[in-house]
Amino acid sequence: MITLTTDFGLTEHYVGAMKGVIYSINPTAHVVDITNAVQSFDVLDGALAVSQAYHYFPKDTVHVVVVDPGVGGPRRPIIATIGQYVFVAPDNGVLSLVYEREERVTVRHITSEHYFHHPVSKTFHGRDIFAPVAAYLSKGVDTAKFGEEITDYVRFLAPKPKAIAENTWKGLVLKTDKFGNLITNISPSDIPQIFDGSSKAFKITVGKAEVTKLVSNYAEGAPGELFALLGSTGFLEISANKAAASRVAVADKGSEIVVTIA
Amino acid sequence: MITLTTDFGLTEHYVGAMKGVIYSINPTAHVVDITNAVQSFDVLDGALAVSQAYHYFPKDTVHVVVVDPGVGGPRRPIIATIGQYVFVAPDNGVLSLVYEREERVTVRHITSEHYFHHPVSKTFHGRDIFAPVAAYLSKGVDTAKFGEEITDYVRFLAPKPKAIAENTWKGLVLKTDKFGNLITNISPSDIPQIFDGSSKAFKITVGKAEVTKLVSNYAEGAPGELFALLGSTGFLEISANKAAASRVAVADKGSEIVVTIA
Amino acid sequence: MITLTTDFGLTEHYVGAMKGVIYSINPTAHVVDITNAVQSFDVLDGALAVSQAYHYFPKDTVHVVVVDPGVGGPRRPIIATIGQYVFVAPDNGVLSLVYEREERVTVRHITSEHYFHHPVSKTFHGRDIFAPVAAYLSKGVDTAKFGEEITDYVRFLAPKPKAIAENTWKGLVLKTDKFGNLITNISPSDIPQIFDGSSKAFKITVGKAEVTKLVSNYAEGAPGELFALLGSTGFLEISANKAAASRVAVADKGSEIVVTIA
Repeated sequence: MITLTTDFGLTEHYVGAMKGVIYSINPTAHVVDITNAVQSFDVLDGALAVSQAYHYFPKDTVHVVVVDPGVGGPRRPIIATIGQYVFVAPDNGVLSLVYEREERVTVRHITSEHYFHHPVSKTFHGRDIFAPVAAYLSKGVDTAKFGEEITDYVRFLAPKPKAIAENTWKGLVLKTDKFGNLITNISPSDIPQIFDGSSKAFKITVGKAEVTKLVSNYAEGAPGELFALLGSTGFLEISANKAAASRVAVADKGSEIVVTIA
Repeated sequence: MITLTTDFGLTEHYVGAMKGVIYSINPTAHVVDITNAVQSFDVLDGALAVSQAYHYFPKDTVHVVVVDPGVGGPRRPIIATIGQYVFVAPDNGVLSLVYEREERVTVRHITSEHYFHHPVSKTFHGRDIFAPVAAYLSKGVDTAKFGEEITDYVRFLAPKPKAIAENTWKGLVLKTDKFGNLITNISPSDIPQIFDGSSKAFKITVGKAEVTKLVSNYAEGAPGELFALLGSTGFLEISANKAAASRVAVADKGSEIVVTIA
Repeated sequence: MITLTTDFGLTEHYVGAMKGVIYSINPTAHVVDITNAVQSFDVLDGALAVSQAYHYFPKDTVHVVVVDPGVGGPRRPIIATIGQYVFVAPDNGVLSLVYEREERVTVRHITSEHYFHHPVSKTFHGRDIFAPVAAYLSKGVDTAKFGEEITDYVRFLAPKPKAIAENTWKGLVLKTDKFGNLITNISPSDIPQIFDGSSKAFKITVGKAEVTKLVSNYAEGAPGELFALLGSTGFLEISANKAAASRVAVADKGSEIVVTIA
């Protein structure tokens, strides 16, 4: 099984061409999309998407992650064996949030051009390097055949909330999802008081809104009301009941969020 | 075979996570998207989508339908055996238009947490309940193992056109499709005179437009002209030739449509 | 293996219904999307999409291409055996760019209604003709069973750049992709001086922009700068580094592009 997480979109032939290359090399592969609508050029957005889904797949799944604004430049193509999965990606940090979740990590610089699709375009390594390498991996070719191990691979830390005063933290909106939920970078370990009921009151400001209510599911909220909840991503979400919180709060990806505990 | 009809969209990891859960339980499953772009929170839109596609699939297909604004609240997760298919969905009426088309319906309330993906998020039962239950069903687990039969499941009637005066009916636009076709809730059995040629003339008003012509296919219309036709959904459509009728008529989902027969 | 290239979009049930029909006829088929987001009614856009991806798939793949504004009218449904692939499409020129790339072409007019899904809608031959014919082809039914060979099939020439003065050519933007890259209709054989380094300088005007720099990959460009490069499609692209060139240049599909060589 091979998954795709890319910013190639669905309106062009890009993802189709990658799948063609994969199936030509391994007709019995099974290619599944995680998403191909990562925000263009946005490595963090791709890192978030794959980190939220990869671990639901069967052991040994090959995850192809291509958000690659540096394609054709000096950034390296890599194979990363992480936990019980294998990832194929550019070495630009797009696997950072996966590295964070797992203990066993081995990374190799892909250099064996033998496994590439030739001629190799300078602007579409998704099709010419990452797809064929994933296909050969899915056929059982050993990772060592693709290149040497490296230890200086790129990893960044996801933006974390910061305490900015006593009982006050500043975080940000990592993502607005299709429903308009504002997914923040705050998790229960950052501000446990919100989630464990030990704080009598809290105030969250985001965009033009103030949120003071915590619920456990969307339907608990009144129509038009904004509330906080622990989302399925493991992060605090600002949401609304059958409405887009992003519109109600006038906030979006990148918006600041300030949390104050009473 | 398992199909997905959801409002989870394609820009996040949601659908990918569901597929991962399914394949981890049943690696030989074959998951096919009907659509994951149902209008957010819109149970009727999901009901329409699945009712237009489920019957084209092979017998015994498991259809997963998740448009679930009440997730985590009191609404029940159900398995519905309907005709020669099995559906997995929240009990919020999203299967209403399927119930309408079939005679044999058996519905069970899913309560066997043994088949869930744990821990169960309060906001993403698509991943933690519906996907794994569908995977076990696709492996042949008997529906009776998942919970007791119920008869008070939720069903609503699709909005029907009404006679408002002699030879005059009022309906509505159920959906604007990608081409801008206005798909109405009027079917040949509602106003047969339009379709069987027995009426010399009719007038349809929708948005800012009046439509007086019936054609059998899009290419029969003149450029820029609006016309009525019997769409592939079985409903009256207001359409244009290589143009978006919704823009020409200034109408959209929810718009009223009034039909008068001469 | 069967691929789909259509303008049916992902928000309705259309593509799902086609897949259901295919799997009901051939449960072991493997259906892969090239793209279902071809611009509505835009035969050239569909022709481009399929011509950029079909040849990456395994030999004998059945490619279904449905951009079909003339559905239900006199245009013929066809099976085209082209090189080592089989195509199923309306005979409206949507295969023109594939015909251009291959030498061996045999086209048949599909007339054997035996292989259709009945009743045949007048507005959705994707579901009722093209999908079932592709499914039977994937089961090994011989192309000759579907209808007689024809030679007067429709083909158009893709728009080519023209010399409009000495050292000056006029082309156009064929497509703006998801990243905002402006994909033009100019290929290296049209103006080799740009690509082979034999020209000291060139000037490209498109939208409100002038472009004088050629790079080999996106990351070579400075932030905010527009540049030209040879894209993965084989055409000249006007692009930017981590930005949408279409927005920077204020240009889009259909925009004129003028190239002057010093």
